[in-house]
This record gives sequence, structure tokens and C-alpha cells, in this order.
Amino acid sequence: MSQIKKAVLAYSGGLDTSVILTWLQENYQCEVVTFTADLGQGEELEPARSKALKFGIKPENIFIDDLREEFVRDFVFPMFRANTVYEGEYLLGTSIARPLIAKRLIDIANQTGADAISHGATGKGNDQVRFELGAYALRPDIKIIAPWREWDLLSREKLLTYAEQHGIPIEMKHRQGGSPYSMDANLLHISYEGRHLEDPKAEAEEEMWRWTVSPEAAPDEAEYLDIEYQHGDPVALNGKKMAAHDILAELNRLGGKHGIGRLDLVENRYVGMKSRGCYETPGGTILLKAHRAIESITLDREVAHLKDDLMPRYASLIYNGYWWSPERKALQVLIDHTQQRVNGWVRVKLYKGNVIVSGRDSATDSLFDSTIATFEDDAGAYDQKDAAGFIKLNALRMRIAAKKGTKFA
Amino acid sequence: MSQIKKAVLAYSGGLDTSVILTWLQENYQCEVVTFTADLGQGEELEPARSKALKFGIKPENIFIDDLREEFVRDFVFPMFRANTVYEGEYLLGTSIARPLIAKRLIDIANQTGADAISHGATGKGNDQVRFELGAYALRPDIKIIAPWREWDLLSREKLLTYAEQHGIPIEMKHRQGGSPYSMDANLLHISYEGRHLEDPKAEAEEEMWRWTVSPEAAPDEAEYLDIEYQHGDPVALNGKKMAAHDILAELNRLGGKHGIGRLDLVENRYVGMKSRGCYETPGGTILLKAHRAIESITLDREVAHLKDDLMPRYASLIYNGYWWSPERKALQVLIDHTQQRVNGWVRVKLYKGNVIVSGRDSATDSLFDSTIATFEDDAGAYDQKDAAGFIKLNALRMRIAAKKGTKFA
Amino acid sequence: MSQIKKAVLAYSGGLDTSVILTWLQENYQCEVVTFTADLGQGEELEPARSKALKFGIKPENIFIDDLREEFVRDFVFPMFRANTVYEGEYLLGTSIARPLIAKRLIDIANQTGADAISHGATGKGNDQVRFELGAYALRPDIKIIAPWREWDLLSREKLLTYAEQHGIPIEMKHRQGGSPYSMDANLLHISYEGRHLEDPKAEAEEEMWRWTVSPEAAPDEAEYLDIEYQHGDPVALNGKKMAAHDILAELNRLGGKHGIGRLDLVENRYVGMKSRGCYETPGGTILLKAHRAIESITLDREVAHLKDDLMPRYASLIYNGYWWSPERKALQVLIDHTQQRVNGWVRVKLYKGNVIVSGRDSATDSLFDSTIATFEDDAGAYDQKDAAGFIKLNALRMRIAAKKGTKFA
Amino acid sequence: MSQIKKAVLAYSGGLDTSVILTWLQENYQCEVVTFTADLGQGEELEPARSKALKFGIKPENIFIDDLREEFVRDFVFPMFRANTVYEGEYLLGTSIARPLIAKRLIDIANQTGADAISHGATGKGNDQVRFELGAYALRPDIKIIAPWREWDLLSREKLLTYAEQHGIPIEMKHRQGGSPYSMDANLLHISYEGRHLEDPKAEAEEEMWRWTVSPEAAPDEAEYLDIEYQHGDPVALNGKKMAAHDILAELNRLGGKHGIGRLDLVENRYVGMKSRGCYETPGGTILLKAHRAIESITLDREVAHLKDDLMPRYASLIYNGYWWSPERKALQVLIDHTQQRVNGWVRVKLYKGNVIVSGRDSATDSLFDSTIATFEDDAGAYDQKDAAGFIKLNALRMRIAAKKGTKFA
Repeated sequence: MSQIKKAVLAYSGGLDTSVILTWLQENYQCEVVTFTADLGQGEELEPARSKALKFGIKPENIFIDDLREEFVRDFVFPMFRANTVYEGEYLLGTSIARPLIAKRLIDIANQTGADAISHGATGKGNDQVRFELGAYALRPDIKIIAPWREWDLLSREKLLTYAEQHGIPIEMKHRQGGSPYSMDANLLHISYEGRHLEDPKAEAEEEMWRWTVSPEAAPDEAEYLDIEYQHGDPVALNGKKMAAHDILAELNRLGGKHGIGRLDLVENRYVGMKSRGCYETPGGTILLKAHRAIESITLDREVAHLKDDLMPRYASLIYNGYWWSPERKALQVLIDHTQQRVNGWVRVKLYKGNVIVSGRDSATDSLFDSTIATFEDDAGAYDQKDAAGFIKLNALRMRIAAKKGTKFA
Repeated sequence: MSQIKKAVLAYSGGLDTSVILTWLQENYQCEVVTFTADLGQGEELEPARSKALKFGIKPENIFIDDLREEFVRDFVFPMFRANTVYEGEYLLGTSIARPLIAKRLIDIANQTGADAISHGATGKGNDQVRFELGAYALRPDIKIIAPWREWDLLSREKLLTYAEQHGIPIEMKHRQGGSPYSMDANLLHISYEGRHLEDPKAEAEEEMWRWTVSPEAAPDEAEYLDIEYQHGDPVALNGKKMAAHDILAELNRLGGKHGIGRLDLVENRYVGMKSRGCYETPGGTILLKAHRAIESITLDREVAHLKDDLMPRYASLIYNGYWWSPERKALQVLIDHTQQRVNGWVRVKLYKGNVIVSGRDSATDSLFDSTIATFEDDAGAYDQKDAAGFIKLNALRMRIAAKKGTKFA
Repeated sequence: MSQIKKAVLAYSGGLDTSVILTWLQENYQCEVVTFTADLGQGEELEPARSKALKFGIKPENIFIDDLREEFVRDFVFPMFRANTVYEGEYLLGTSIARPLIAKRLIDIANQTGADAISHGATGKGNDQVRFELGAYALRPDIKIIAPWREWDLLSREKLLTYAEQHGIPIEMKHRQGGSPYSMDANLLHISYEGRHLEDPKAEAEEEMWRWTVSPEAAPDEAEYLDIEYQHGDPVALNGKKMAAHDILAELNRLGGKHGIGRLDLVENRYVGMKSRGCYETPGGTILLKAHRAIESITLDREVAHLKDDLMPRYASLIYNGYWWSPERKALQVLIDHTQQRVNGWVRVKLYKGNVIVSGRDSATDSLFDSTIATFEDDAGAYDQKDAAGFIKLNALRMRIAAKKGTKFA
Repeated sequence: MSQIKKAVLAYSGGLDTSVILTWLQENYQCEVVTFTADLGQGEELEPARSKALKFGIKPENIFIDDLREEFVRDFVFPMFRANTVYEGEYLLGTSIARPLIAKRLIDIANQTGADAISHGATGKGNDQVRFELGAYALRPDIKIIAPWREWDLLSREKLLTYAEQHGIPIEMKHRQGGSPYSMDANLLHISYEGRHLEDPKAEAEEEMWRWTVSPEAAPDEAEYLDIEYQHGDPVALNGKKMAAHDILAELNRLGGKHGIGRLDLVENRYVGMKSRGCYETPGGTILLKAHRAIESITLDREVAHLKDDLMPRYASLIYNGYWWSPERKALQVLIDHTQQRVNGWVRVKLYKGNVIVSGRDSATDSLFDSTIATFEDDAGAYDQKDAAGFIKLNALRMRIAAKKGTKFA
């Protein structure tokens, strides 16, 4: 156990991080700085301040930040420019919040002269990796304390006992067995893992879902929504310009109302195991569809295909915690470059779990040319005879091979 | 115009290919062999025989084949093993049927001693490429007649006039302006293009859709369905073993009933233009979700990611008509190899346009290990301390760079 | 044959393009503008002017440009930033010159009010594609005349007869059968194709090679050379700062002297055939080695691997003529971004065909950290125990699979 | 320190692994099984037996295997089918031997009832990863003892002191400071790392190199060599059929004689650091050139490009120790599939460090078609007019974009 003078703790105010706070003070005899962020998770943050004060944290060592705008503008939207999906389905709601938290932890450590950071992520998950890769990339000499990998409080009972012994308040729900799920929320999504979900055969219980109604319970009436894009980012809903995080919040409201964005999957963690997770990403689900639609008319084919080819790699980088890596940044430069002309609007229809694209246009940048694509007479815009040569030369290598008797078994 | 002795025509029995039939006889003075295939498009084929006879085709030159089983088993299912999607959304329903037709055209040409084939695809689309690349790959000296690239019947009126002058029967719908869409159907999907759809701003009319009810009109009651997989292919529904094409037909019925599988998009054609298309792929939409789900518990992470990385390329090969190319075959060998252990079942819930995975298991091949993934005490199955070293070494290159003062701008 | 008013011809002054010049005047009755470029091919350009005048070209329609600096700075060096090699070996010496010529043809067409361009590339090769894709991308309505695809002068005799009939001077070498090879040269390379090389079994004749001595004839003494890099481009040789094209010229001199950069291969053309080519790229061969060496100490591992993964695609784009495409530009943005810290020097030893890296360093940007890499005691810079966890977690998925009895056949 | 009953040690007979042997006996009180392999490193193996006996190893616990044939046939040649090169230059000579050693360690552990394996690789290098990933993949419950990560003998003096105290014979060279390099050898290469090489600025000393003469000292006379290929593997030299390992041995002899295959580079280790290494791979350097040459005439373009695109990933898998992973096997299936028609011969000229391809042919499988590629009259084999349509349609998307005024910045 190395010497630590001051540690910045990612502090939610909940039981686990309160135990960590006390445990850090006890085991490292170090000054603790708490950092609590509003990423749109929909929880009061001020209670975290009073709790921290109660644990003896100095007022100047308590940081409570509203990061919603930065989160959506600089992390969520850049990621959506790439139509990013991990393993075909997961919209990376947790993954994309971690690098911002890592950055703020290091910023605050630098500001307060701390030599360490600490977090409440377990040793089995991806979040420890995301926090720590980010922190090391931003400040290579930082010390990191991950109590779940160090202490012996690995069962819930031990944790509760420790809390009791140290005067940490325990809410009734914890005494009654705690949440049946491990949850994480921010403006992009809420996630559920563990416990009741550990059997991938079994359907998730309806009462688990918090942000969306079920498709069955959603309105019987569809709702149309126009999304305006500039440089690949949504900038207005139904004609109303809004800040990035307000757009996402409003999309979450609409998606949640219409039962959109539930996902139940088994994913592959970076640490090597398969894990079952359930996610609600109402706004993100709408954005994924809409962004592909605006790109479909404004992006060159080969650029779109290049992006599709690179997307799984980019998604894995974010999932695995490499947001602050040079390779993620190199890919981002390419992705952002491609979005210059991704301007226009998309109309989607929201109905009982469905996001249906029903129209798209770009006054300035559409590459859709109906005079060429038409099935009717095109007045010579396209010479059908050209296709014969096109096919002949594309076939040439296969024809030569076939003539030579080479069968491609 | 080269000398042709005998040409095999892909013949639907409809107006366009009937005009082509006559035009071939008139312009090439060649013997015509007709080939009509049942790919599950849901149309009577026998009328094609009587029409062909009426145009003077010899009985031994009329081929009507039921290719449904071969189509689904050897083309559709192999493609779904790769979770194949073109440009993020299109399930390649038309693309995957073309190589089988090309193969049969060449088989019949070889069998009847024909030196040419002919088809009714236009010079603007992908289908001409798919037919012809396949044909050239399978028989490099074949001559190909693509009347739409040769003749002057480029408007509908000219075509009707020609039909009238040559005694080709014209149904009332053609006189009344013809279908408002260009359509293509087989067991995997039905597609709509052109005319009323040429404005990507405008929503498709509800009456266009033929295979699915709208989500709004679908039953208010969800339906659960169990799909059993062997080596990556579905083999049973709700416990009942079925032939490949019967499975797809039944999935189409169920999907259609529940409003599943509609798609409206703008895609990039191989010949270089953007094109708006609408598709109904009810069974395929279910299969894509279900296959990903069975893979999620039976496939190794890196194998799954390798497949994801290669998928867009594989999809483009099929979209562009390279099914019979050596590179598609090389990819298929890899894909098929990965499916050996993709065995088990998936439960999906079908409801008003939604396909929701609600359970998955593999008695023999699951790689999901709840003893390791658990949030509870794992009795030592996983040592959380290992994660520290894992993170430290993965971070090393970034730490060295940061220490050296290199900022990855 | 469409109506042409004025055509800009890529004119070398040689027999073939002189015939084309006359043929254009005769067949299109159009005004001809000649464009002759110095790309470092090592030929006098002024004779092209007098010949053009003799064929009746107006003085203001004769363009002779020294493009050497632009060629190396804006085309060759950007390409070398990616360590670009086509099919494992070809350094793309011809390919990279074509987009610049295409650009100048269009610039001159715009400047002179021409509606067409014309070139002397045949219908079998890659160069026609490179010229024309570039031209279309830069000016979509340009008309292109490719006489080799149009005329009937397809044999050498016919061409000579035409020249004689039209008073085009024929040098003795043409009367004696012409060059035994088709050649192309610029500052990056000289290429040989066709005729004597059409049998890939047979070794090229020693007298073919023009820029390099044979390794056997090279000096018995090795020569060391220091190359300084800034942002991925060479900027100085042996401490002497030089302009881009002077660096390449000097590297050509040194490489040629030491028998460096000969290549004999069979490549795959974009138009679908295999072709045998011989190339001399003395300077480029040195640069490829040296650039990899400077990157080896200044580039992050994953960034380097990302570049390696993308390189074949980037190389194919250039080979196939897509320099002016949006996808090449998107890749270039990524590549250029990665070169910010590629600063330092490389020492190479040149000896009888060999380019041997014998040292490399970067005072400002080296990521090589000998305190960590050392086999000696590292004073705690690296904790070897971290490796155990690193390996354990990387192995986890394979261990789970093996435990489950899954054998990855 | 866990309980170990019996451990299989990868034992060279040298000082380091002799110390490990004794240390295992002392610290784990376990029975030790020694495994010594002939991979063509060119050392006597029998001394390892007598040393092992002296340390009290039971005769039935001493394994000395000649693995040369298996090594080259099942590891080296499959890897060369992919033209495998790590980071553009390294031929993976060390990496490819490790999985075979891992496999034999596990085989012997299974055979002798051992519960652990042990090796002498340090905690900083790649070899520990390669040994251990392989071992875990093949036997997930194996215990692994990596003394360099556990013990305190991290300096050379401590090691020598320990050896002295435990009666382990120390050769004079060790007393005199030991080798100036860390070396590893097998039939594919010999490698040098560490100590004198730790400064990447400094040229390696001439006396370091052991397998090759310097180009300067190589014969003044070139030597031609014919290599025959079957299914992508070399099977005969100058017409003489030979076993796989005899071919590689003979190529090493020839390459070494002609100064071929030296390499000096800085590479990126999997554990996160840059490392300078020197390698001699005489036979492998010849094979890489020759294999590309035989593929150049027998492989379809797109298949070759697919292989090129996948190669860096395949190389990284081998470099990083994932030979026994399912993803490497999936790639291998694809690679092997492509080699079916890679049959024929290649002629190379060996001269003072150069490997020059001077001819290649395949009587059965050449796809080179001189009647099409010819610059002369081709009697209609290729219609140059086809190129116009080919170019027009490939340009279409760029023309549409340019017309729409979209500039691809």
C-alpha cells in the first residue's frame, strides 16, 4: 500500500462510495477530495455535499459539477457521428461517460494538489479500465486506488457491517437486500446489470425499466418529429434550436413516452467475460436512426463505407476505455472531417418502440439526384450503355480465371 | 449486335419480359429458352409456361423451377451467418437472389447448348451487375443481352406500343399507368423502388406495403417465439423442426402479422447513384436479431469482432454482385468456420414492429459463465487484483507518451 | 462523336501524342491546347513547344509547367507519410503523378475555356482511369477524348503510316521498332512495361534499367546518409535543408549510384488484368525505409497499427485513380494528423542495392524509453508483476471456453 | 505462492533455466520435469539431459524433442502463407516458435500428471505472454510459474551468487559479464536484444551477427535459386523435393552466405513499451519475396487484397501470443483456403543482401494472360471501349457531388 497524501474520489453520495470515502481515510490516512458530477442521471447532488461534510471533508475539497452540456456536446455527439454501436447493438451509454469523469478527476487532482484518485468500480468490470486508462493517459504519475480490488469487503454483508461500524447511514433499501440490479445512469442511458439478470435465459422483469414505458403501454397514436442536423450533430427539434444536452433530454422524454430504446443483451467485457446487461437509451436510439438517415443523402458512398468499416474498431476503443488514446483521436479527426456536409433534416415517426424514418432532405448538401436515379426517361443524364463496360471490366479477372480453368473452390 | 444462336431468358411472364422475349426473337433471330423460378415471390408460375408457348417457345425450352429450398439454404442462411447488413440497414433481399438466378441461367444455357443469356434488368440498377458478374464468373464466354441497355423502348409508352404491335397481351393495370413502384419479391423480402418513391422527403404511402400490416394495425397482444439454431442456422420454431424455406416462410407470416420488417432508406448503388428503396423483410428482421443473440453467448469475443469488422465488406460484395467471386468464397469459409458452435435457442417477443430478445441459451456451447460474471462473491473464480496489472500494461504506452510530454493533439 | 470546341491535350512532344494532336484537329475540328509538364522525368520540354507551334497550336495555347516542387511536396510526400505500397511492393510512382496532371488539365481547361481534355493513355491501363476519374471529380461536365479507345490506329504500323501521311516527324528509333518497353518517368520513378517484359518467366535485360546501376556495378564502399524529418516529411539530407523536390532528386542520385530501388513484379490492374512491370524508384526506396524508422520511435503503437491496417486501402485508392475522391481525402486527414510528432533523424547505410537503417533518434518526440525497456535493473520503472494480471485477463475468454469444453476447431 | 506438485520447465540447459530449475525445487518443493526442444537453434541438446540428471531430475522426467519438422511445417509455413510481417518489417521468428513450445509443455504436463509449467521469460517481454496465453488456451487450469516475475534475482550479480550458492556451474562467459545481447534462435531466425542495443541511435556492431555474413563480405558472384510451391508452401529447391525444415535450413545457408536477412528495428511490444531488436532471418527473407511472387501470378486480385488487409491483424495476433486463439484459427482457415492454387515456381537471384525476383510461372494455375495484357494487337481479347463505361460509372458519384457544388474539402 503506497503512501498517499490526497486522493480525489468519484463520489456519488451513495452507500458504496461513502464506505470508500471512510475506508480511504482509515486505510490511507489521506485527505479526501470528493467529486460529484451531474451527467443527467436525474439525481439530487446536494445531498452528496452534506454527506461529504459529515465525513469530515473540507468544504474546499467538495466538487459538485454540472457536466451535462460538456458531456453531450464533446462526448455523446462526437460518438454518434460515427453511428457507433458495440457488438451490433449496444449504444455505449456507460462507456462514453467514463472519460469525462476521468478527465475531471485529473483536473481536480491537479487543481487541489492531489497525488491519487479513487473510484468505486469493481475489479470485474469495464469501468475501472475506462477510469484508469483515462487517468493514466492524462496524468501518467497519478496513483489510483480501486478499493474493490484491494479490500476484503467483497460481500454485501461485510460492506453493511463496515458501514454500521463506521457510522455510515444505511438506507432501508440496502438493509432489505439492496437493489436487485447494479445501475448506472446519465443523459444517454440507464443500465442494469447483475443479480436478477445473471441468467441470460430469463426475461427481464417489467418493473426493472425506469426510463421508458413498455411498447404496450405507449400511446396508441404515433408522433412525428423533425430533427435538424448541422455538421453531423442535431441542433434543432421540430424547428426549435436547442443546446446539445437539451436536445438529448427532450429526445429521452419523447423516446421514453413511446417505449423506445430498451435493449437486453449479452456483451463481451474487455476483461474477458461475457456479461448480461439491459439498457434504456431512448434518445440515443432515435439519434442513431436519424443520423444514418441524414448521412444517407449527404455522404459519399465510399466515405460512408469507410466509416462503416472503421466503426466497430472505434466502438471497441470507447467500450474498452481508450477515449483519451491517440488512436481514438486519430479516428475522430477522420470522422469529424466527414461530417462537414452532413446538414439537413430527418423526420422520424415514433410509435410503440419503433423509430421509423419517414423523410429526409438537405437543402444545401443532398447528393440524391432524382434526375439520374429515375426509372423514367432521364433525358440523357445517365447513359445505360456505360454499364456494359463497367460490368465487363469488373468481371474481367473472374472471366480470365474461369477461362484458365481455375475453379475458386 | 453479335450473332446469337440460342438465348436463355430470365422470364417472369409479365409484360416487360414478354416484350423482351419477342424483341429477342425479332432482333437476334435466335431461339429463346425461358427460365422462370419460384423463389417464394408468391406468384403463380404456370401462366408463364402458357405464355411462353404462345410466343412460340418449344416445350423443351421452357424451364420452371422451384428454387425455394436451395435459395434459403444455400444463399439466405449463409448470408445471415454473418449478420449481414448493407449500409447499416438493408438486409439484401434482392441482392441475395440474383446469384442463384445467374447460376440457373448458366446451368440451363449449358444444358440446352445456348450461347447467350438475357434479363430484364435496367442499365441503371444493381441487378444487371449481379446477373452478369455471376454469369461471367460461371461461364466466361457467355454472351449477355441486356435489352434495356440496347433498345430504344426506354419509355413506358414505347414499350406498350411495341407490345400492342406484336400482339403481347397488356393487362389493364399497365394501361392505367402501371404499378406506382418497381417491385421485386422472393422469400426474403419484397422491395419497392422508383416513381412515387423518388422523393426522399416524402413518406411512403401506407397502401404500398404488401407483406406486413402497419405496426398500428398489428395485434395488441405480443407473441413469443422460440428459434433453435444449429451451426448458426435456424432449424426449428417453437420446437418444431422445419426445412429452411419453411422456417423463413413461417417467420414471414409471423413478422408480417406483427408489423415487423418495414424499411425506408436511401442507399448507394454500385453504379454510382443514390436510390430510395422501401423493403419488407419480416422474417429476415427477426433472424438478424435472433442470430446476434445466439452468437452473443456462443461466440468468442474476438471472433465476433472479427466478423463484425469483415461484415460491411462481405455485405458490399453481395450487394455489388460478387457472390460468385473468389473473395466472397474466402470470406464465407471463415464465416462458416465460426458457426460450428453457434448452437442453442433464442426467445423473441414480437409486438407491433418490435423484435425483442427475451432469452437465449445453449445447453452445449454457452460461453456465458455466471460464476465469473456475478456481482456476488465468486468463490475465487476471478481474482480482481489481476485487473490492476491488466490496466497498468494497457496504459503503459500512453503513460510513457504523457511522461515524455507528447500530447496527442 | 460529340461536338468539341477546344481540347487540352496532355502533350509530351513525342510521336504518340503528336499523332493524337493532329488526329484531334482532323477528327474533332477543334482548337487544341497543349500541356507539357516537368515532373522531373529528365527530358527537355522546349522541343514540345516548337513542335506544337509547328502543328499550328497558337502560342497562348501552349502550356509548359515546372511542377516538380508541387509534385513532390503535395503528392509524393503525403503518400509516403502512410508508408504506401501497393500489393506489398509497388511504390506507386506512376499512379501518384496522374492526379496532378489531371488537375492541371482541368485548370488549363478552365483558364482557356476548353470543354474537353485528351490524353494518350491506352484503354487497357490504369492511367486512363487515373486521368479521367481525377478530371471528372474536378469538373464533372468535362468531355474526355481518349483516342486509343476511339481510333483504329491500334497497331504500331498504322500509327506510323498515319504520322507519315500527316507530316509528323518520325525519329529513327520508331522506324526501327520503337522502344522495347513502354516507359514512364517522373521524379519518383521510371517504369517499364510491355513488349519484352510480357513473359513473367523471363528476367528483365540489364540494359533496360536507366536510373540505377546494378548492385553488382555499384561502389564497393558503403555510404551513410542522415535524413531529417519534420511532421513526417524529409526536410534535410546530411544536415542540409533542401526543398522537397531537391531532396528526392538527391536521393535518386544516391540510390541510383548504389543500385537501389529496382523492382520486377506482376501487379493487378484496376481494369482487371495482371500486368508485369519493372520499376526504378531509388529515392523512394530509401524514403520508405527511413520513414518507417522515424515512425518506429515517434509513433504510438496503436496509431502505427491503425495506419498499417488502412495503408493497403489507401494504396489501392491511389493506384486506382481516386486521389481526388472524398474517401482518399478523409484518409489523408487521419494520416496527416498522425505525423505531427514524427520528427527526428534516421541514418541509413546505402550499399549495393541495400538500404540499411543503422540509427534513429528524435530529440523532441521519441517514445523509446530505455529505462523501461532495459534488461538491466530498471529501478522500479516497470513492475514485472503487472504482467501476470495482464496475461490472466487476456487469457480469460480462452480459459472459459476451454473449461466449457469448447474446442476451437 | 500456490501449492504445486509437479512442474514442467522449459529448460535450455543454460545458466538461467538451471537457476530456475533449482529455485523451483527449493521454493515450491515440487517435482520438476524438464523439456528441451530442438527447434533448429543449432545447439547440442544432450548436455541439457546430463545437467538435468545432475540436478536430480528423474530420467523419465527429462524430455528432449526434435520439433524442427513440426515447427516449420505447422507453424512457420502457415504463417508465411499470409506474407506475415509485423510492423512492416519483423518476420516474427521468435513469436512463431512460442506456441509450439506452449503446446509441448502442456502435452508433457498432461502426460506426466503435472499441475504447473514454468519458463524463463522475463516480465517485460512478449514471450511470457506467448507461453502463457498458449498454455491457458490449451489447459485452462494449468498453474504457471514465471520466476522472473516472482523472485528477487533481478540483477545478474544476484543470479550468479544464487548459482554459486547452489552449486550450479557457471561458464566463464557469464563471469565475464555474459553475452552483450539477449539472444533467441530457431530455424527461422536468431534475435538480439538488450544491453548493447539499448540505444536506438547506435549501429549494431558487426561482430554481433552470427548467421549471416555482411553484404560486404558476401560473394561477388550472384546465385540463382528456383523455389517450387505447392498450395502456398515451398516444396523443392532447384528441382529437389525436400522436407519443410530441410528447405528452411538450406535457405538459411544460402541466405546467410549472401548476406541476406539482417534487420535492425524498434518494435512495439504487447506489454506496452518500445524495444530495439536485431534479427537475422536469411531463409525467411527469401521466402517472403518468393511467396509474394508466386501469389502475384496465381492469386485473384481481390483475394490478394483481402489477405493484405487482414495481414497486419494476423501478424499482431502471432506477435502478441494468440496463435491458439479462435480468431487466429478463423483467419488461418481463410488464408489456407486461398492457397489451393498457389502452385508454380519462382526464380530468385541472391546477391550481397539482395533477394531479386527474376522469374515466376505456374504451369497449372497462372492467371497472367498475356493475350489480354499485351500492348500489341490483342485480336479482340479486350475491348478498349469498355473502359469508357467503367470509368464513367466509377466517376458518377464524384461527378454528382461536384455538380451539386459539394466540395470534398
